[in-house]
Amino acid sequence: MKQRIIKLKQTTKNKWINLFEVQYVNSKNKLCNWIFASRKKDPYEDKSIDAVVIVATVDSPEGKKLVVTKEFRAPINDYEYGFPAGLIDGEESLTETVQRELKEETGLEIKKFIGRSNTIISSAGLSDESTVVFFVEAMGKIDTKYQEKVEDIEVFLYDVEDIKKLLSSDNKVGAKAWGVLYLFSCMGKIE
Amino acid sequence: MKQRIIKLKQTTKNKWINLFEVQYVNSKNKLCNWIFASRKKDPYEDKSIDAVVIVATVDSPEGKKLVVTKEFRAPINDYEYGFPAGLIDGEESLTETVQRELKEETGLEIKKFIGRSNTIISSAGLSDESTVVFFVEAMGKIDTKYQEKVEDIEVFLYDVEDIKKLLSSDNKVGAKAWGVLYLFSCMGKIE
Repeated sequence: MKQRIIKLKQTTKNKWINLFEVQYVNSKNKLCNWIFASRKKDPYEDKSIDAVVIVATVDSPEGKKLVVTKEFRAPINDYEYGFPAGLIDGEESLTETVQRELKEETGLEIKKFIGRSNTIISSAGLSDESTVVFFVEAMGKIDTKYQEKVEDIEVFLYDVEDIKKLLSSDNKVGAKAWGVLYLFSCMGKIE
Repeated sequence: MKQRIIKLKQTTKNKWINLFEVQYVNSKNKLCNWIFASRKKDPYEDKSIDAVVIVATVDSPEGKKLVVTKEFRAPINDYEYGFPAGLIDGEESLTETVQRELKEETGLEIKKFIGRSNTIISSAGLSDESTVVFFVEAMGKIDTKYQEKVEDIEVFLYDVEDIKKLLSSDNKVGAKAWGVLYLFSCMGKIE
């Protein structure tokens, strides 16, 4: 049988993130309860993507390099290595968000859009948060002056050896970035 | 300057997941507020890993195949493609969780542990949730009878063509799985 939702209830009233309680009957005819976090007003009706993640490469005299960020993240009270990323702002298209966030966080501009992922769920047991990963070629000079005051982001250009070092370190890495970093470390090149 | 936490306050009282409000001064000397979700009682003190994700391959007459799950997830009211995974249970070691979850969700047994990732943060703007990805060789027969009644998980053995089809579909894919699926699709083989 197909699962069906009995009721969905928002249990907190914050601006950016709330908890929801859902009661549903699952495919084994069992009544289940689940609590999850969402950025949306109506998680089951609003099918929009929450955020983009940007895999950006730049040409350098030593070959292609990957744009890697190191950002302070309050939820972990620590720095996380990852990629430029950000929430979709109002009526922006996904590619507009990619352009804006890359500029804001790194100072770089888009040279070429290469491809995108399908819909990625950050942690489906915990939240409905959805993202799309974009692959782009970027150009320009790294500059952090466009960051908001709440942002604390260092920007690096990594080659394969830097990536291997990061992946074998004790540093924390973002989930959407980790797989791509691992890919480049396995391929032995960035492309 | 280094950022410093002013106060951290739990604002909900649920069993599995709660919201926390943190006030901190960031490296630019700006007072910031952030709300995030956590499974922990004391997110900044408790440094333990929340969950494991299992990249399991099995030998078949046609070559290595990858164990892929399709699971109903209440937060998205939809099915998500990913890998066997689960929360650390009490005093379990990470490798004990890997063995238990692989058996429960798929019926398979561990043949060999191959490697593991460093600490991966699911979505550091939203939550402190941390996972480690384990690479294993598995053996046995797929059997879903060990699943809990709340679980609704189909298990597949995918070759590279199946993975390419999934990644170019409209299906939702878990963040920790996506990068590894993308890796195998780029490599053209599963290993």
